Amino acid sequence: MNVSNGPTQMNHNPGIAAAEAVDQDRLWQRHMEMAKIGAIPGNGVNRQALTKEDITARKLFFSWAKASGFSIGLDAIGNIFVRRHGRDPDAAPVVTGSHMDSQLSGGRFDGIYGVLAGLEVLEALDRAGAETERPIDVVAWTNEEGGRFAPGAMGSMVFTESRPLDECLGIADPQGVVLADALAETLAATPEAEKRPFNFPIAAYIETHIEQGPVLEAKGLPIGIVTSIQGSRWFEIEIRGESAHAGTTPLKARRDAVQGAVAAISALNTLMDDPTDTVRFTVGRIVAVPNSPNTVASRVSFTIDLRHPEGTVLTDLGDKVEATCRNAVTRCDVEVREVFNRQPCVFDPNVLATIEGSAAALNLLAMRMPSGAFHDAMFMNEICPSGMIFVPCEKGISHNPAENASPSDLAAGVRVLAMTVFKLANS
Amino acid sequence: MNVSNGPTQMNHNPGIAAAEAVDQDRLWQRHMEMAKIGAIPGNGVNRQALTKEDITARKLFFSWAKASGFSIGLDAIGNIFVRRHGRDPDAAPVVTGSHMDSQLSGGRFDGIYGVLAGLEVLEALDRAGAETERPIDVVAWTNEEGGRFAPGAMGSMVFTESRPLDECLGIADPQGVVLADALAETLAATPEAEKRPFNFPIAAYIETHIEQGPVLEAKGLPIGIVTSIQGSRWFEIEIRGESAHAGTTPLKARRDAVQGAVAAISALNTLMDDPTDTVRFTVGRIVAVPNSPNTVASRVSFTIDLRHPEGTVLTDLGDKVEATCRNAVTRCDVEVREVFNRQPCVFDPNVLATIEGSAAALNLLAMRMPSGAFHDAMFMNEICPSGMIFVPCEKGISHNPAENASPSDLAAGVRVLAMTVFKLANS
Repeated sequence: MNVSNGPTQMNHNPGIAAAEAVDQDRLWQRHMEMAKIGAIPGNGVNRQALTKEDITARKLFFSWAKASGFSIGLDAIGNIFVRRHGRDPDAAPVVTGSHMDSQLSGGRFDGIYGVLAGLEVLEALDRAGAETERPIDVVAWTNEEGGRFAPGAMGSMVFTESRPLDECLGIADPQGVVLADALAETLAATPEAEKRPFNFPIAAYIETHIEQGPVLEAKGLPIGIVTSIQGSRWFEIEIRGESAHAGTTPLKARRDAVQGAVAAISALNTLMDDPTDTVRFTVGRIVAVPNSPNTVASRVSFTIDLRHPEGTVLTDLGDKVEATCRNAVTRCDVEVREVFNRQPCVFDPNVLATIEGSAAALNLLAMRMPSGAFHDAMFMNEICPSGMIFVPCEKGISHNPAENASPSDLAAGVRVLAMTVFKLANS
Repeated sequence: MNVSNGPTQMNHNPGIAAAEAVDQDRLWQRHMEMAKIGAIPGNGVNRQALTKEDITARKLFFSWAKASGFSIGLDAIGNIFVRRHGRDPDAAPVVTGSHMDSQLSGGRFDGIYGVLAGLEVLEALDRAGAETERPIDVVAWTNEEGGRFAPGAMGSMVFTESRPLDECLGIADPQGVVLADALAETLAATPEAEKRPFNFPIAAYIETHIEQGPVLEAKGLPIGIVTSIQGSRWFEIEIRGESAHAGTTPLKARRDAVQGAVAAISALNTLMDDPTDTVRFTVGRIVAVPNSPNTVASRVSFTIDLRHPEGTVLTDLGDKVEATCRNAVTRCDVEVREVFNRQPCVFDPNVLATIEGSAAALNLLAMRMPSGAFHDAMFMNEICPSGMIFVPCEKGISHNPAENASPSDLAAGVRVLAMTVFKLANS
């Protein structure tokens, strides 16, 4: 924690002055204006990547950026970069942002908050007269959600060269529209933007986002300092028994796949039991065959989504899934397939300390916490020191029209971001 | 048990003589000929009610009956009656039979065995020169399976006036063919048959059938004396929770409908635990919403098929289903709907004693047992003293092309039937 940034010296610190210059009302109004683009019933938003709605949102964002005098750029996959210049034009920038696309039935804050937060920071720095050594870029990554063109986090994956652009261009949406065409249309809509390359040098990356979980709200804390993004292992379990007549076959003679699945899930619940409530264990899909009320099921398949912020715990629990299922299921055959395995992403300690120091300097209560969901920061962390700031969202609801957050919590996150970016852009 | 029918007096007893006259080879060959009509891969049969295949099978059956000199009749829903006359033309007949239609993907013995068994009995009585006081009718009930026109057991329901014919005529099959049309075509194909009324007086009804369960095979017994058809209660359970992000939402904060269903089914397993293995408890259908691997399920519905031969046990267990589910599911809402409730059908003690005496007289080992499956005898038992004879089927497999039974077991069942029918038709 940087004691020189403590509250007693507030007036002398341009980072704090920038934080104080954050305009809560304008920030909220901009969210509400963005939410009109692709609005759906129940206060929701359907603004999928590279659609007409996405183009409209991009133009609105550009109009705000240009009105404030910032330069705008686009790379070849449509990632947006809005720049506030620093004293050293050759220094690697500090980058902050998130994404503007939404889920099919999404909310008003997921993604767009991090983008609007970044623009508000640039403007607050202007108002506070706070110069930085490095440039600051606000980024809006293309297609984070992946609801239209799978997979998500596409813009940050391509930017960081985790995945070649060429591999993405042929991907079709459910209506058969190819990404290359939708992207060309999107890029052509804002011809005034400068061209930006992929993977340019970056000093640090900070992403602000609603928590998408209930922890901060439950604890009454405005700020989450995201230490990591959980690792994930996904499994598909298949239980194979034998169909039989529900009226005639004695229970002891059955090979009942539904009962096999119930036994396996019960045993997995015991394996995953965690007093700290950190393990995320979800059986979200379950399918029975023939799925007839008066026939014993011959086959049941179910999925496991297992996540944990610590790689060793994730490895240990995931490695026990198959044996746990096999031991629990005595009368049916068991097949376990692992379909996804990604170790945790651990954010940069200096970035986290800078966020923590900024929150403390602003008298905003904060806690360190892992992120359950994926974010573009997961890919950025592979090319530069990265971190994330969470703010509370109502009841933890996200990917849902009911997604909500308070104007003051959103502004608090931007204040911490402003001070953090100011410090990093001067280091 | 009727001691006068004991093995020491075999030569003097025309019932035993008729049993000995049963022709195992012809019985088997007739099954194999019938199995060619609607044959499907894997030795199976697809001969659904009132189809071209059903008409072909009816004509073949009539040709055998006529060749042996028996008269043939049809009622208005197409139930077939083949009569061997008794000494008293006005006496109520003894009726035996079953059905000729099969499941969509059925086997070679379910139903047709009881019909061919009846014809074999008439012929064996002829060969043994055994006269009876009462006429004997072999019946083939229309549409027992209900796979094409639901519900099943339609012929016996209409005959016994449990359901009016008019209610059935408008029922359409999945291709939109109306039952009235398919029935008219079927009746027109055998214009030589006499017209028979519904619900004529009947002295007794006996149905032979493969067990459709593994008990007789496991015990090595050729004959089951069916004491009852289990009662059934069917339930639909709905567990309503809340969808949530699988990565972000702590387990303790979830209202996970899959976990609710697992808890409910586990508690129901405990409720249904039965050392005698008589309770039939099946969860055959389970459906999760949204059924996505990385979303906590908001809703799971599952079915319960509960059966028991004793009405009091069925009532007691069924009445505890709702409370058991509610107590087990702490975090979700629970809705329990009962969709079917039929008390057990208990067969006539005199008919059962006659079957038992016949088996003993023929030195065929037999056990009393309940039937897990429904049969036409369930409806006949409401209008006349009824009973059923089971024979073993391989591994208990039924409603499946792999359904199988041995020629000697099939013949043993017919021998017991012949002696039983002879006795009842002389009482």
